Amino acid sequence: MKISALLTSAGINIGICVLLLSLYSVLRKQPGNVSVYFGRKLAQEQNRSLDSFSLERFVPSPGWIVKAWKTSDEELLASAGLDAVAFVRMLVFSIRIFSIAAVVCVLGILPLNYYGQYMNHVEIPSESLDVFTIANVAEGSQWLWVHCLALYIISCSACILLYYEYRRIARMRLIHITQSPPSPCHFTVLVRSIPWSDERSLSDTVKSFFMKYHASGYLSHQMIYRVGKVQKLMNKAEKVYKKIWLNAIAMEKKCSPLKYKCGLCAGATNSPQLYHNNLGAKNMSLDQSDSSPKLKECAAAFVFFKTRYAAVIASEVLQSSNPMSWVTDLAPEPHDVYWSNLRIPFRQLWFRRIATLFGSIVFLLLFLIPVTFVQGLSQLDQLHKTFPFLKGILKKRFMSQIVTGYLPSVIFVLFLYIVPPVMMLFSTVEGSISRSGRKRSACYKVLYFTIWNVFFANVLSGSVISQINTISSPKEIPSQLAKAVPRQATFFITYVLTSGWASLSSEIILLFGLVWNLIRRYILGRKDESTSVPSFPYHTEVPRVLLFGLLGFTCAILAPLILPFLLVYFLLGYVVYRNQILNVYIPKYETGGQMWPIAHNTTIFSLLLAQIIALGVFGLKKSPVASGFVIPLLLFTLLFNEYCRKRFRPIFDSFSAQDLIEMDKADEKYGRMEGIHQQLQSAYCQFSPVAVSSAENGSSVSQEVDAKGCSKELKDELHHPTLSCIPAPRLEQVVSSVRLLATARSKKASSL
Amino acid sequence: MKISALLTSAGINIGICVLLLSLYSVLRKQPGNVSVYFGRKLAQEQNRSLDSFSLERFVPSPGWIVKAWKTSDEELLASAGLDAVAFVRMLVFSIRIFSIAAVVCVLGILPLNYYGQYMNHVEIPSESLDVFTIANVAEGSQWLWVHCLALYIISCSACILLYYEYRRIARMRLIHITQSPPSPCHFTVLVRSIPWSDERSLSDTVKSFFMKYHASGYLSHQMIYRVGKVQKLMNKAEKVYKKIWLNAIAMEKKCSPLKYKCGLCAGATNSPQLYHNNLGAKNMSLDQSDSSPKLKECAAAFVFFKTRYAAVIASEVLQSSNPMSWVTDLAPEPHDVYWSNLRIPFRQLWFRRIATLFGSIVFLLLFLIPVTFVQGLSQLDQLHKTFPFLKGILKKRFMSQIVTGYLPSVIFVLFLYIVPPVMMLFSTVEGSISRSGRKRSACYKVLYFTIWNVFFANVLSGSVISQINTISSPKEIPSQLAKAVPRQATFFITYVLTSGWASLSSEIILLFGLVWNLIRRYILGRKDESTSVPSFPYHTEVPRVLLFGLLGFTCAILAPLILPFLLVYFLLGYVVYRNQILNVYIPKYETGGQMWPIAHNTTIFSLLLAQIIALGVFGLKKSPVASGFVIPLLLFTLLFNEYCRKRFRPIFDSFSAQDLIEMDKADEKYGRMEGIHQQLQSAYCQFSPVAVSSAENGSSVSQEVDAKGCSKELKDELHHPTLSCIPAPRLEQVVSSVRLLATARSKKASSL
Repeated sequence: MKISALLTSAGINIGICVLLLSLYSVLRKQPGNVSVYFGRKLAQEQNRSLDSFSLERFVPSPGWIVKAWKTSDEELLASAGLDAVAFVRMLVFSIRIFSIAAVVCVLGILPLNYYGQYMNHVEIPSESLDVFTIANVAEGSQWLWVHCLALYIISCSACILLYYEYRRIARMRLIHITQSPPSPCHFTVLVRSIPWSDERSLSDTVKSFFMKYHASGYLSHQMIYRVGKVQKLMNKAEKVYKKIWLNAIAMEKKCSPLKYKCGLCAGATNSPQLYHNNLGAKNMSLDQSDSSPKLKECAAAFVFFKTRYAAVIASEVLQSSNPMSWVTDLAPEPHDVYWSNLRIPFRQLWFRRIATLFGSIVFLLLFLIPVTFVQGLSQLDQLHKTFPFLKGILKKRFMSQIVTGYLPSVIFVLFLYIVPPVMMLFSTVEGSISRSGRKRSACYKVLYFTIWNVFFANVLSGSVISQINTISSPKEIPSQLAKAVPRQATFFITYVLTSGWASLSSEIILLFGLVWNLIRRYILGRKDESTSVPSFPYHTEVPRVLLFGLLGFTCAILAPLILPFLLVYFLLGYVVYRNQILNVYIPKYETGGQMWPIAHNTTIFSLLLAQIIALGVFGLKKSPVASGFVIPLLLFTLLFNEYCRKRFRPIFDSFSAQDLIEMDKADEKYGRMEGIHQQLQSAYCQFSPVAVSSAENGSSVSQEVDAKGCSKELKDELHHPTLSCIPAPRLEQVVSSVRLLATARSKKASSL
Repeated sequence: MKISALLTSAGINIGICVLLLSLYSVLRKQPGNVSVYFGRKLAQEQNRSLDSFSLERFVPSPGWIVKAWKTSDEELLASAGLDAVAFVRMLVFSIRIFSIAAVVCVLGILPLNYYGQYMNHVEIPSESLDVFTIANVAEGSQWLWVHCLALYIISCSACILLYYEYRRIARMRLIHITQSPPSPCHFTVLVRSIPWSDERSLSDTVKSFFMKYHASGYLSHQMIYRVGKVQKLMNKAEKVYKKIWLNAIAMEKKCSPLKYKCGLCAGATNSPQLYHNNLGAKNMSLDQSDSSPKLKECAAAFVFFKTRYAAVIASEVLQSSNPMSWVTDLAPEPHDVYWSNLRIPFRQLWFRRIATLFGSIVFLLLFLIPVTFVQGLSQLDQLHKTFPFLKGILKKRFMSQIVTGYLPSVIFVLFLYIVPPVMMLFSTVEGSISRSGRKRSACYKVLYFTIWNVFFANVLSGSVISQINTISSPKEIPSQLAKAVPRQATFFITYVLTSGWASLSSEIILLFGLVWNLIRRYILGRKDESTSVPSFPYHTEVPRVLLFGLLGFTCAILAPLILPFLLVYFLLGYVVYRNQILNVYIPKYETGGQMWPIAHNTTIFSLLLAQIIALGVFGLKKSPVASGFVIPLLLFTLLFNEYCRKRFRPIFDSFSAQDLIEMDKADEKYGRMEGIHQQLQSAYCQFSPVAVSSAENGSSVSQEVDAKGCSKELKDELHHPTLSCIPAPRLEQVVSSVRLLATARSKKASSL
């Protein structure tokens, strides 16, 4: 590839980006797209009038960029939580380190590479890109120490920046934990693998165990139930009813004036509060009169403690001399609980974890086989055979070029789209107890997948077997990589230009959302704005950003031309992601910055990889001195990582006694404990309260929940958010019909 | 090697073994050797009359074998502790699994190997050993499924036996923890990395921290001191004095009648109790009158808690939001504390750990280089040059054969003797807080070392670089091992015969101890029996036993002839080690069977290695079906290990809340708590109480220690056990001279 071609490609991509960003700045002003581009604001604000027509609506404007740029970290923290800030800090770190790297490498290394060999230089635009890589430096060159020095500068600044970022996020996490309002998850422990006993119910077993061994801290508990047939019927009926009801609303709204009003909490008459109260009360009275079938208890429960410290103790100390019973973990936030996984028997978990690990590795290694196969099928002659009617079109040279040139990459991209859902599925099967844990686990999997299939599979081009062969002889990795990476540098530059920049444009324009919105509005004819607002897809975006970081580190001293393009990517990403976080996505749960360790570890991995490749390159260039100098840098990076792991990692894994006790004391001092304890009882609701009350009518705790009805916390974390939109009177019909069904079934059972 | 040669070698070795064991049975009856062969009994029992002369003393007898065999596990547990039982269980497990393997392989595989190829069989005695290995089976043979079946039988029985053994040891550990008398280590937490403060002393910082955050559980604490110059002087003076005193005693005893009386606690006049009381009291009065130099506090302390549960909580919960300050661990037993490592700043530890890891790996890999070099030097021509006077002797063929044949292996064995001390040194530098932890860490290192340098270095014969090359291409490991292991089977059989059986004979006859005893008695002319009784050298014996297990598993189906010899080794080892544990060694501290996980993991590793080698062998023999059947076995073994890790491992890492609370409740119920709390205060003594009191004269805790004098616990765990033999009046002289020195120094310092 020549410089001119690269510049043309860059020009086209810049043009496309500018076009799409301008288009975005226009589209976002259209009232019809509010639900797409301001889902977050829509969910938060009740009223929003945008429907005044003006010319301004159709003129591109950079206002959103300025706004996204100017928002401070504190505002971001307040509005989107620590996870979002941690993600933005990844971008900030990348911008900083690649600015340094760009200055060092473009000024220091680029000229060295260019004049690395005695050769006739043509005009720069028609120069090959390879001339700018380290491949152009003569063997045994005296100037390789500059490359080594640049590697030192990049590695050391990266470590320093990493250290400060880690410290910053750790501090923010501590502040987040200590300063935030009391969260039920700090007082709650999830107990799994409760031993069965013939004499008494699981609930009694839990109570007696914690009354005996955690008498001072134990407050109450709440069992987790298996979904029985009745519950499934209930859910089905609710779903059917919901559909009918939504259609009815759509019909009603068709004639109503255009209003940006949240459909979630329309008014007092059909508020979930009332609906639950009604249903709860009705059901309780019913329970006392007839014998409705009970739900089965799982060997798992949420146990509530009086103080945060007591909960942390119960979660961290080995409870029983059989480590596979009475397994305790701190509970996730109520919104964050992944209920269906709580029902998995604990004994399955270790096996599930191994099975999914195995599955992910197989998926990672064998992903390219079906892709290559399908790509092969889509070749010209195959297409001729499969679709004979295309013969005429495909005979044209232009069309055949497009088909052979683009179809394989389109297929590749389409296959890539299935990766995050597949990984998410793996993480679900794994048995994570929280949604955030599932997303984090999927993030790891997607990250490994991306790094393998974009970086290594490209570098070690060839069959899977030959790739594994190369990787499985550790001694040859440096030299293999050293040969392959500079050769692939051109590909990586174009990858940043196309995939990187394009991904940002498509992220901001939200093509799927936009198209779906158009279909919904103009084809399905729905006007309501009550779409579900998504949460930020960390499991796809974090791996993407980290992959570009990896490309940057590994190519920096080998092919410095990548750095300016990468820097543009990160700057654009900074603006785009901040805008999206502020406007589109809504944080549904908060992990307190637990994404940061992933970023830290990946960056360290990237640094080590870059150093290993440099080791190989210096070896190939016959510069033993430069090679020798890389080894202390490798050791230093490893030691630095070990230090950070000791110094910061425990903060992300558990809470410190000091902080928790201080918080407990403060709450007790200001008399807030009573309120917290009351809130706790209703914080975690597995089903809509109908189910809970029909099952747990013996337990004092759940009775209290029913009597109080569901509080505000309950409303927020209902299992089916849209369920809360159903007006109470109509749902009662559903419930009564289900109840009829259930009593019929139980009569049948007793008669048998 | 031919069968006849093997049988001759076995005959010679059996003869030597029988001879040495008979010799032992005679030597142990000689009164002069009591201190060698009954060190343990000597230390426990006060009187023992053996000096009646009878002919029986000189007749070999098998009584000791019967006694060692018949002692039950319970008796062993009662007298030598759980660690010894765990070690014996390793032998029992090995006997059981290799009995099964021997039956299966000798009956099933040996004939198959022998008739594996169409060949003319000569008479069995002159048959080569290779004929009995799998190398003799024809390629693509239909009978390889028998080998595969044998592998299945061995692996499955090993897993079943391992499971039951792990469960047995885990139960014993639980009983050991719950049934044993209250131990101070359960109530004590070692706090390190206490933050410095300018305003107050470290002791006050500790007190205020634990009073604030662990108010309900905190009892008191005890600082750890740096060894100052005064302390060093003290130690030196004590050592000098001890020497003189021992000589004096030896002189006295020379004329006294032969009595087997422990020299440790001779009588009431020079009991350490009194000596400490005297010294403590004297010193306290001195402290009040003059200003003796103070010891410096370290940023570490023992904190005592009121209950076991409180201590465990404090040790397991993250204390501070800075994970590198207030680091807590459960304290080791008082006897077990490795005081000098407690003074290491906590921030150094992670670095020390990495450095020693790195050092051990380098030592492991490069060990053979100096050995080979020195072996080369000892070759015939080199000897001729270095020692010209040997020329005449070396010219004789017999002598030269001995020199070239034995000298290299003698050098190898001598080099091997330095391995355990070097690994012990590494483990000391690593910063382990307990002697048992240090020994366990050394055990790991020696184990890795032995497996690498005996198994892999022999199998992958060649230079270090070529060995690493082989190992560093994982895909080729199975086939490489499959080629090499059967080839080396003959060597491994002779290794079991010579090194294995010989090590047991030398273990029971205790050659070094015997020779040293003779020298001491007849050359140095000492008659006292007060030698220090050693504790069992787990760090050399556990790796040895596990290495033979590894050899057994890997060679079982390849060269089944090894199994009978191995079985004899384990049976003999069972008798020998039990005898030694009962008679010679004394348990100085107890880890509660924490050696077992090492044995379990190594056995799993051996099984996996055997399966991988079988995979390679079946591949070489072109039997894809048999190869295919090995893979599920590999996966099953990995899963089994993972299950055991989940099910049993946590029991060995921490205590369960349930057990601890039950123990606390029982102690409170029977009013034992008060006594335990009082004992706690004096359980851990860093120096002789002189030092403690002179340093901590402000602290109420240490004053209490002094006032009470040192209790029985204190006596047992004195830093220099022999120090307690010094009669009080004479030691006072030493102390007073040291005090003079110290005051002189302080005067000098103040005048400067």
